[in-house]
Amino acid sequence: MDYAAQSLKLHAQWRGKLDIVPKMEVDSVEALSLAYTPGVAQPCLEIQKNPDKSYELTGRWNTVAVVTDGSAVLGLGDIGPEAGMPVMEGKCVLFKAFGGVNAVPLCIRSKDVDEIVNTVTLLAGSFGGINLEDISAPRCFEIERRLKERCDIPVFHDDQHGTAIIVAAALQNALKLVGKELSQIKLVLSGAGAAGSAIFRLLWSMGLRQAVVCDIHGIVYPGRPDLRDNPNLAGLADLTRPEITDGGLAAAFKGADVFIGVSAPGLVTGEMVQSMAADPILFPMANPVPEILPNEAKAAGAAVVGTGRSDFPNQINNILAFPAIFRGALDVRARDINEEMKMAAAQALAGLVGDALSPNYIVPAAFDPRVQSAVSAAVAEAARRSGAARI
Amino acid sequence: MDYAAQSLKLHAQWRGKLDIVPKMEVDSVEALSLAYTPGVAQPCLEIQKNPDKSYELTGRWNTVAVVTDGSAVLGLGDIGPEAGMPVMEGKCVLFKAFGGVNAVPLCIRSKDVDEIVNTVTLLAGSFGGINLEDISAPRCFEIERRLKERCDIPVFHDDQHGTAIIVAAALQNALKLVGKELSQIKLVLSGAGAAGSAIFRLLWSMGLRQAVVCDIHGIVYPGRPDLRDNPNLAGLADLTRPEITDGGLAAAFKGADVFIGVSAPGLVTGEMVQSMAADPILFPMANPVPEILPNEAKAAGAAVVGTGRSDFPNQINNILAFPAIFRGALDVRARDINEEMKMAAAQALAGLVGDALSPNYIVPAAFDPRVQSAVSAAVAEAARRSGAARI
Repeated sequence: MDYAAQSLKLHAQWRGKLDIVPKMEVDSVEALSLAYTPGVAQPCLEIQKNPDKSYELTGRWNTVAVVTDGSAVLGLGDIGPEAGMPVMEGKCVLFKAFGGVNAVPLCIRSKDVDEIVNTVTLLAGSFGGINLEDISAPRCFEIERRLKERCDIPVFHDDQHGTAIIVAAALQNALKLVGKELSQIKLVLSGAGAAGSAIFRLLWSMGLRQAVVCDIHGIVYPGRPDLRDNPNLAGLADLTRPEITDGGLAAAFKGADVFIGVSAPGLVTGEMVQSMAADPILFPMANPVPEILPNEAKAAGAAVVGTGRSDFPNQINNILAFPAIFRGALDVRARDINEEMKMAAAQALAGLVGDALSPNYIVPAAFDPRVQSAVSAAVAEAARRSGAARI
Repeated sequence: MDYAAQSLKLHAQWRGKLDIVPKMEVDSVEALSLAYTPGVAQPCLEIQKNPDKSYELTGRWNTVAVVTDGSAVLGLGDIGPEAGMPVMEGKCVLFKAFGGVNAVPLCIRSKDVDEIVNTVTLLAGSFGGINLEDISAPRCFEIERRLKERCDIPVFHDDQHGTAIIVAAALQNALKLVGKELSQIKLVLSGAGAAGSAIFRLLWSMGLRQAVVCDIHGIVYPGRPDLRDNPNLAGLADLTRPEITDGGLAAAFKGADVFIGVSAPGLVTGEMVQSMAADPILFPMANPVPEILPNEAKAAGAAVVGTGRSDFPNQINNILAFPAIFRGALDVRARDINEEMKMAAAQALAGLVGDALSPNYIVPAAFDPRVQSAVSAAVAEAARRSGAARI
């Protein structure tokens, strides 16, 4: 099917993918006096006395903002805030369909970090959470870090953490299949933008200790000249401290147990896969064309392959994470979505596969109806355990 | 009925008066590929080529933001952004019920003019219009003025202009009943905040030439010491240039044809009404208790009385204006809601009364089903005539 033409046609028919619908009729003086003035003064006064009542008397308990500056939309790049709106509306559709969450798309006409941080901070009282979306690296790291400091509600950059959580779930199951431990494996990661950095950091916090990160300039190592202006990459280099610095991705592949790609089509060859350790695991997730096609990777000896695509087995799809993670965070009025909550989400996702685990089934399917309740319950529980929950 | 207790109970049941609902199902890989990736890239690219396409391919054509800082909510004053949310949600309910407009409540955690202006400006690409709400005077004047300069979409402070438009409609009909002309009458206006100032300015642009404005310090006249720091009041004084400066509201009443009150309960006595010109018209709109009760005003000789209350005849209710005005502005993708559009709205509202005009029926009832189409059509037509329309 020609998705492009058909989607454009549908968007012109929909003219917006969301409707905002009152929960009550206001068709009489009495109804108006209850939903609006004069009756509405009473809930206002209750919230004035205790602002936390906004979670009980308004929609805040179930509403998140989906915020972008349009600087890194899908694979399209910096297309601007207005042009990012169809994606943000789509994200909001998924929030409701897969998490029961009301989501409001907000596209900001600025790429200035201070302006974005100020705008979102000033709106935090209207929402129960903030989902950052399609903001380019490295600005996305600073924006998220500063917002997490300044906001009293969860701030979650899905391109980073959503992806990282599903990868962590899939990897955990894939390692089980080949009988390896995360703490023992050697990882090669291609791509050190938003997704790559977050994948690395989440796996590191789960026990990974040997990794080589590559970006467009080759292996990321301490002292690489361009790292001076990039605290994020410098941080990755400091943690990984790779033994090799030359030879790029091909050199990094030698002896690796796992490859994770969030970079560009076709970067990985069969020879590179053959140079890996026994039973290699590959998640080539460049979209729509992966770093290596699954059949080529399998032919070269891959034990398990996952991609971002729905037409191959083991799809790493963010839809498995962000709606249920926010559902869980909102359910306990979490102040934050912290590492414990992310790890709990990954564990819960991995656990759903259970005994059906096989090389072609390491992560639940996008439409698995068990995901929302399992992941949200695990996230809520982790929020309580880690002190992020307010109720 | 005890609206306060009942409304509080209902708000605790509703937990938010709005739902955000997808217009399509996303229950299959194909549906997902059309509403979201990869299909969604196509509408994004179309908007990147021409940002005006955001009106055709996203919900922007029918979405407004309802923005407050919580500084002047109802009669409650500065209760803060979270506490203002029940009113903003209520306003959004009315936008949909009476104008078919999707409205998003945004409460800003700042009372700083620059911060509010920046926040709203940066979000303007996500909306087709901005409705400012419950922002205290005089900051509301500067915020609206600066936003109108910086935004390419309509910015409308309903507390000012919504009220002014209904008053203008009601006054036009009331004057017809007593056989007077707006350009000939003498007006006394009590209250020079957001609503009072806007009422004065709209009537002035419609032909009023004799008016005395009173505020809490008495008659507003050029050179009054406290006007130095208040450009809005100084502007009113410059236009009205009252002959008297002493004696306050009672002095201003003498010989006046029309009284409009947006001030405080009980400020007007029967004696003051008796001091007015023949067939006086009074709109005492302080809420919930007016400046003078209708029966007292009538007993003292008032020919026509209108209030803000639904339990007396001639309710001046903003619901008659803002939903239909935005409907009309959105329908023609207006850049602005200008004086011509406001006057057209007032004319259309007044016209709906038609031959049924009587001292107890000078303005349509809040639930008159003809209002939306009549007012929105008049506003759209005025937008085209005045050059504010983009289509």
